[in-house]
Amino acid sequence: MKQDRPKISDVARIAGVSTATVSRVISNPGMVSEDTRATVQAAIAETGYRLNHAARNLRHQRTGGIVALVPNLSNPFFAQILSGIASVLVPAGYNLLVADTHSAGAEMLLDYAEPSRADGLIVLDGALPAAGLSGRVPVVQACEWVPGLLAPRVKIDNAAAAALAVAHLADLGHRRIGHVAGPRGNVLSEARFKGTVEALRARGLPCPDQADYAADFSLEAGRAAADRWLAADTATRPTALSFASDAMACGFIGEVQRHGLVVPRDVSVVGFDDIELIAHISPPLTTIRQPRAALGRLAAERLLARLRGENDPGDDMLLPVELVIRASTAPLV
Amino acid sequence: MKQDRPKISDVARIAGVSTATVSRVISNPGMVSEDTRATVQAAIAETGYRLNHAARNLRHQRTGGIVALVPNLSNPFFAQILSGIASVLVPAGYNLLVADTHSAGAEMLLDYAEPSRADGLIVLDGALPAAGLSGRVPVVQACEWVPGLLAPRVKIDNAAAAALAVAHLADLGHRRIGHVAGPRGNVLSEARFKGTVEALRARGLPCPDQADYAADFSLEAGRAAADRWLAADTATRPTALSFASDAMACGFIGEVQRHGLVVPRDVSVVGFDDIELIAHISPPLTTIRQPRAALGRLAAERLLARLRGENDPGDDMLLPVELVIRASTAPLV
Repeated sequence: MKQDRPKISDVARIAGVSTATVSRVISNPGMVSEDTRATVQAAIAETGYRLNHAARNLRHQRTGGIVALVPNLSNPFFAQILSGIASVLVPAGYNLLVADTHSAGAEMLLDYAEPSRADGLIVLDGALPAAGLSGRVPVVQACEWVPGLLAPRVKIDNAAAAALAVAHLADLGHRRIGHVAGPRGNVLSEARFKGTVEALRARGLPCPDQADYAADFSLEAGRAAADRWLAADTATRPTALSFASDAMACGFIGEVQRHGLVVPRDVSVVGFDDIELIAHISPPLTTIRQPRAALGRLAAERLLARLRGENDPGDDMLLPVELVIRASTAPLV
Repeated sequence: MKQDRPKISDVARIAGVSTATVSRVISNPGMVSEDTRATVQAAIAETGYRLNHAARNLRHQRTGGIVALVPNLSNPFFAQILSGIASVLVPAGYNLLVADTHSAGAEMLLDYAEPSRADGLIVLDGALPAAGLSGRVPVVQACEWVPGLLAPRVKIDNAAAAALAVAHLADLGHRRIGHVAGPRGNVLSEARFKGTVEALRARGLPCPDQADYAADFSLEAGRAAADRWLAADTATRPTALSFASDAMACGFIGEVQRHGLVVPRDVSVVGFDDIELIAHISPPLTTIRQPRAALGRLAAERLLARLRGENDPGDDMLLPVELVIRASTAPLV
């Protein structure tokens, strides 16, 4: 049932304009007068013309799409990473598509690793099954990583970052320092908890046998952690807490404030991520800044290099983090 | 070059387990022991087995994917809408893929409207060209809408919502009420500005000839609006401002506070959206709450109905909004 595809010249002829004008209507409609736009759009509809992007991809045996697998799109942490990824992929001629692995079934997710669906994957979810991701399209991992998956990782040193939070709180005189981890088994939760414990031990401070694991990294999980902390013995509970995400720290602060306590007078709080709004909450949150846009950009560049067939040594790429001191932490009184 | 595809029974035989166990390793690996998981994953790798999701889609002549076209993924406003969309599509057997239209070129975006790429589209960006989206796969529009595109719309009444903000500020005694719009030409910016002007006129209050348009809906755009407001004559500048997004309101508050002013004593501020963290900023933001998850869910349900071939009357579906009064607004003193 092959039939000739309408060409851009067919559209131009019917609309009575140049092919350059048709091209402009498609790619930059704001630069064309409303009348011309309407005429060209009618001609596009009449001819059934469509862009030859898919045809070009077919010639090059590629889909033109890169899929990013993100654990939870409702976590604002991922927005800037995705912007960083797009800022590299799009100029290189790739579409970036994002899938929320949290809401999709594993069967569906593995479809993305099919060469007919995507040219490459950027994995931001460490809970995906390694077997389904191996040996199909090129994969790069960013932030999180799948244990056992042989694919380059672009990440931060999570344990060292968690140790920065402990050092800051210990320097303020806190001796009972707690940690609210993300979900149990998550690679980030475990690495940050491990870094916290090691830093506490190195300073001779008491450290919890196991982390106060949260259900997820959300505001709601922080509220629940606050309820546990509020119910604990005031003589022995932590006077300072580090959190594995800003959203949890923020939920914790909101809940303890609702009970009439004051941060940092009654408890010091350190977050993790430095999401955009966190400087505006009350009190502005002390946190660990991750270079999110750079994490995205470097992961995308590494994937492009693999797609060009360049050799990747496969080693971890570790990006630096920074402690940002704001007003949610104070000396122990 | 046809060759027999490995089956799930091949994997089960090699791993020495039942097909049910293989299935569990794929769909719910947490329920399987680590040893079994490793054995099955090795067998999957050995056979090259892959799930028959794509084959099933091929039989049904569908891709199994729905693409959501979002103007700016770094705006946290979209996260909950996308969660709402996924909560409907995924149980129905569809993948949800998200594309950031802000970063991609128009040529690439129109590819998504090809039946070979997606079974349907949810359009959340009113700046896309109608011609490229028409007459291919089923389309539903959510929140924003493309003028001239004949596709069902699930949205709020933006003008009425903006009027709620004006009514609240006027009831507090403010007479000089300003409005910071989103980007010029954006359907939401224009509708909210129009609603603001109409509400001011109806109350006999002075209203601006044209909106104070921002570059986008971002925190940074709010900061820039604050700089314009700070530079204006204190005797005539607004004593209260409504904003077309929470992020802009938040950027505005941060900037005026940095200049030593106090919100709401020196200026009352109303946002728009009710994004999650906004209750935690200082002062907590008075805003217009959009039913974001419901907007996403209803758009997805409407798209599914179209995919099932059900008739859609094509009328706009308008969801209710709510004024949430917090501490960023106060009576005029």
